[in-house]
Amino acid sequence: MHIRSAGSLSAVQLKMPSSAWLWAVSVVALTGHLFCAAAYERTERNCSLTPPYLPSTAVNTSVQLQELRAQMLPLNVSAYIIPGTDAHLSEYIAPRDARMAFMTGFTGSAGTAVVTQTKAALWTDSRYWVQAERQLDCNWELQKDVSIISVAEWLISEVPAGGNIGFDPFLFSLKTQENYAMSLESSNRILKSIPVNLVDQVWKDRPQIPADGLTRLPDRVLQRTWQDKVEQIRSLMTTNPYQPTALLLSALDETAWLFNLRGNDIPYNPFFYSYTLLTLDEIWLFVHTNRVTEELKAYLSASCTGSLCVQLKSYDSVRENLMTYVAQSDVKVWIGTEYTNYALYELITPQEKLITSSYSPVLTTKAVKDETEERILREAHVRDAVAVIQLLMWLEKVVPVANVTELRAAEYVNRCRSKQKDNRGPSFETISASGPNAALAHYSPSEETSRRLTVDEMFLVDSGGQYLDGTTDITRTVHWGTPTDMQKEAFTRVLMGNIEISQTVFPSGTSGVRIEMLGRRALWEVGLNYGHGTGHGVGNYFGVHEWPVGFQSNNIPFKAGMFTSIEPGYYKDNDFGIRIEDIAVTVPVHTKFGHNFLTFDTVSLVPYDRKLIDTSLLSAKQMQWLNNYYEMIRRLVGPELDKQGLQEEKDWMLRNTQPFTEAGSSASVCSSSLTLIALVFALHNII
Amino acid sequence: MHIRSAGSLSAVQLKMPSSAWLWAVSVVALTGHLFCAAAYERTERNCSLTPPYLPSTAVNTSVQLQELRAQMLPLNVSAYIIPGTDAHLSEYIAPRDARMAFMTGFTGSAGTAVVTQTKAALWTDSRYWVQAERQLDCNWELQKDVSIISVAEWLISEVPAGGNIGFDPFLFSLKTQENYAMSLESSNRILKSIPVNLVDQVWKDRPQIPADGLTRLPDRVLQRTWQDKVEQIRSLMTTNPYQPTALLLSALDETAWLFNLRGNDIPYNPFFYSYTLLTLDEIWLFVHTNRVTEELKAYLSASCTGSLCVQLKSYDSVRENLMTYVAQSDVKVWIGTEYTNYALYELITPQEKLITSSYSPVLTTKAVKDETEERILREAHVRDAVAVIQLLMWLEKVVPVANVTELRAAEYVNRCRSKQKDNRGPSFETISASGPNAALAHYSPSEETSRRLTVDEMFLVDSGGQYLDGTTDITRTVHWGTPTDMQKEAFTRVLMGNIEISQTVFPSGTSGVRIEMLGRRALWEVGLNYGHGTGHGVGNYFGVHEWPVGFQSNNIPFKAGMFTSIEPGYYKDNDFGIRIEDIAVTVPVHTKFGHNFLTFDTVSLVPYDRKLIDTSLLSAKQMQWLNNYYEMIRRLVGPELDKQGLQEEKDWMLRNTQPFTEAGSSASVCSSSLTLIALVFALHNII
Repeated sequence: MHIRSAGSLSAVQLKMPSSAWLWAVSVVALTGHLFCAAAYERTERNCSLTPPYLPSTAVNTSVQLQELRAQMLPLNVSAYIIPGTDAHLSEYIAPRDARMAFMTGFTGSAGTAVVTQTKAALWTDSRYWVQAERQLDCNWELQKDVSIISVAEWLISEVPAGGNIGFDPFLFSLKTQENYAMSLESSNRILKSIPVNLVDQVWKDRPQIPADGLTRLPDRVLQRTWQDKVEQIRSLMTTNPYQPTALLLSALDETAWLFNLRGNDIPYNPFFYSYTLLTLDEIWLFVHTNRVTEELKAYLSASCTGSLCVQLKSYDSVRENLMTYVAQSDVKVWIGTEYTNYALYELITPQEKLITSSYSPVLTTKAVKDETEERILREAHVRDAVAVIQLLMWLEKVVPVANVTELRAAEYVNRCRSKQKDNRGPSFETISASGPNAALAHYSPSEETSRRLTVDEMFLVDSGGQYLDGTTDITRTVHWGTPTDMQKEAFTRVLMGNIEISQTVFPSGTSGVRIEMLGRRALWEVGLNYGHGTGHGVGNYFGVHEWPVGFQSNNIPFKAGMFTSIEPGYYKDNDFGIRIEDIAVTVPVHTKFGHNFLTFDTVSLVPYDRKLIDTSLLSAKQMQWLNNYYEMIRRLVGPELDKQGLQEEKDWMLRNTQPFTEAGSSASVCSSSLTLIALVFALHNII
Repeated sequence: MHIRSAGSLSAVQLKMPSSAWLWAVSVVALTGHLFCAAAYERTERNCSLTPPYLPSTAVNTSVQLQELRAQMLPLNVSAYIIPGTDAHLSEYIAPRDARMAFMTGFTGSAGTAVVTQTKAALWTDSRYWVQAERQLDCNWELQKDVSIISVAEWLISEVPAGGNIGFDPFLFSLKTQENYAMSLESSNRILKSIPVNLVDQVWKDRPQIPADGLTRLPDRVLQRTWQDKVEQIRSLMTTNPYQPTALLLSALDETAWLFNLRGNDIPYNPFFYSYTLLTLDEIWLFVHTNRVTEELKAYLSASCTGSLCVQLKSYDSVRENLMTYVAQSDVKVWIGTEYTNYALYELITPQEKLITSSYSPVLTTKAVKDETEERILREAHVRDAVAVIQLLMWLEKVVPVANVTELRAAEYVNRCRSKQKDNRGPSFETISASGPNAALAHYSPSEETSRRLTVDEMFLVDSGGQYLDGTTDITRTVHWGTPTDMQKEAFTRVLMGNIEISQTVFPSGTSGVRIEMLGRRALWEVGLNYGHGTGHGVGNYFGVHEWPVGFQSNNIPFKAGMFTSIEPGYYKDNDFGIRIEDIAVTVPVHTKFGHNFLTFDTVSLVPYDRKLIDTSLLSAKQMQWLNNYYEMIRRLVGPELDKQGLQEEKDWMLRNTQPFTEAGSSASVCSSSLTLIALVFALHNII
């Protein structure tokens, strides 16, 4: 799935179209009677008019603002900061954590709101400015510089010296708190941690925690029991030179991984609200204990207190329990700074009781799959390929003759996946985008924007599934008519990027950021580029972005057994978008002279659109990679299609995985053709 | 010049051979009478014998230790830390700053010494362990884990709780101080800043500051006067959103650059001891004022106090002057954290008077050359090529027939350079290394190690010159006999790395670390690699490593007009070493679709050893680059050789820059040959 660049860990699809596009629709719909300015006014607020103009999409936030301000008064808080994340610093959040959206009306995935007694401001990045202007009412000013420095400057201008600036420490990462503190440090404004969320106090119909609870993974998808994992992590604790006595797990996938449990508290993410404090001789699991069935209690040995017994504690008691633990002498708590919230961090004092690393040993251990995990994750991709092949085959047939919209295509692929064994729904909202829609960052179709697919436009589909055995994520871009030369060239260069990363050989321990440019190089050569990251980890029935694996600067070095997406792209504004995304696993490779080198083995198994490949641009090595890949698709997906009795799909697959003739710029072709020339000339001379 | 990897900024050549090599020599020299153990004992200390065995190279440090300990007592300091750097955190230091060497006897470039009342320990990295065992006496223990954590752990074990650990804040970077503070924080040991260096108190014959002083650069090598530069930097101060009132310059090249001055306080580096405090309306230059001639005083307008007058202040008064400045209200001092020492940093309080960036605006401005600087730096490389060509031609002639040692080769190239216009000596100690010596990191020959060059060994020469108009740095590896297949393959793959970086196209603003792997990729493919960085900036008569330009993770992004070395290599232990180093400048490049893209233009102009190039490994594009490069050498160096009347050198150059026939794996070759085949077949059919 499409990810943001520059180390960002957040990505949710944009639900609203760009204003430019809406304008075009309006003009068509209104048969030319309105100018663009008029059409434009219809979609975005205009607070400078009297009375202000508000589109129907704007949300009246006066009541919640008034109530929040009333909460702030007795606490003597001049400003209150409302981030867009949850207490686990999750990339995707549950509806009950959408506090920023509740307060502002703005539903974009990234933003920060700040409220004072007289003003309210929202900070969000350029992807969301149009959306914000459509959803905010005139209580809110929109701020476009999303740096914490900018928020701090605004705070300094609005909050008098000596004033308190309140925040919920559960919603701040260490880095966020540190950055605010640093920016406000010299200004005599006090950053005040308030562990009770003020928005929750005024959010009357805040969604409940789902009653249905946790499930354990079946043994057939597991190599390590939770007890094995606990012992593995404890051994990393005892070998840590700083000698931690406890490990605090805050990210939701950490607890889910450790106990081989899953939940469904967050859309598309099989997680459940939880923390874990793992000590060398105890295990404290913080959950909503009413959700833990008797069967699960037995599974977790919840009735004892030994070193392999899980003591269940109330989710909301994590702070007081951690405080009690830290109050003991001779304890040291290890945390991963990237996912621990400030509310827990601030309890671990004095400093000598704290041990930090960017990522907890659970996240770094989880990043390397065991044999079973690698095998079943590969298997999940075989079944997933069937669903995507079904979609592409169907579109090829029906687009030229019937009305298929982006939404219908998305529904179709979701339905295809749902028929595959062990499917647990999509792993994120399908991005199904035709023509100019595909050029929008984080687009996914809505009733309002859904475009009809035609033979005249390129179509991009980025989708994935959750399966009991694995999470998938794949993007294909296709054209059912005649692509332009520019489209073919851009597509081929994106593909070259994908191949160049996939086939590169590198020492074990190389960071993804050091090889990421191979995904861009063929584009750079002709002055093209793309504005997002090049890949993210995936795992076994987890979030579709499984950090810290990937190609971003804060990702950990590659070792054998890590799964990552590889997804270069190219986007031409108001015209088309191309992305090719495959999942690949790092595998050891034999080299002529050295040891401990890796390469990638692609596990996504769906052919690329042949029509869009200009083979004259490919090197012989790239062509060879492509043919090997196609041969692998036949070898792995063929039997699965047979097994599922999908003959038409098999024919389609075989047709689309015909080997390319090696007409590329090959050393071997060259030398053989040179030999041929020599032969022919020799022949000629004889004649 | 060869640089260390992983963001390290320090590199000086190892003066001592590895023990393995010395052992071989001993065995030969002693005609087999001694076993290797005995031979080994002769070169390294053995403190476990009674009495301890000390080689003749070991230095008796008892006196200086006793005197230092006496200095520590009245200050109540239980341990004293002695780093290897100077007050400007320079990469190379003057003899008078070699405090670690004075105290320990160990002369390696990297290390930290710590002294308590009863113990003394030296930390240095693996390059230097053998050297340390040869130079240390038994007062010293050698510690091999060079992390600050390791030093801190040792300190905690040796210093009682509540004890003071002293350090000279002038010799600590902010980061060093922070790391020590963090590691000691929880242990109740106090890190105590002592601004008077205790080693200096006991170093009776400490070298003086050279009496000869500063010189100004001639106008012909300048586009910007120092007044232009001051105004340029002030404009960066006024546009900085944090509104600094002053900029503190600590790195020696910052002051040298700003005033277009040079000195010679540090071997190979045209610097002079200095700091600058540049405010919006004053300029304070801290130097040894007795070294500033009347002419220079006039040049610097040192008799006035206006905004373009340089007020000369004593070098040793920098702390008190900075303190006075900071004591004023409404001042804010901007520092670059990478080169500011803790002694100055600790004065800038409270925090709101401090503004930091990794590098000062002088370093980031200096990194981009103006038109004149770019032109003259290119010109210096033309003359420098003449000297290196003279060396290679001479070696080719004499090595097969005469006794030429590594030392003599180094002297020869230094002499050749000295004859070139505006030469100011070598830019670092020449690395001249034959056979196994070239596989040693940071080797440069001594009388003891200098090997005779033969037709049976590869030879690596890494050398550079200081010229009034520019600093050069180039490495060539040659073979005068018959290289092995492995040597040819490794050389060719190193060359491919050099070419791949050189010809890559990338967006302006791309960090070097993101493209660095192109220098390694051809090696990685066959399981080879190298253990040092891939390049560093160079400039106009400055240090040979001109940071922050280069390919390391802490280097700034590339913009047009930056000069960097590109220097992949390969080293086979006890056998041979290969490095190919060229300087290149980033230049704008026209691309098919985009704008603001860059590529490299190589400015080093010396052909590579043809015998070592396996053209069958090169792609057509690599071959084309090579031929273009050779054509450029002919075009630029040819006329210079003519001008200097060097006909034999010109013939040699022409012979060694013959175009290669494009037998590589070329797309164009392929398509043309395929066309040929088609034609010939057509012809054939007709016949």
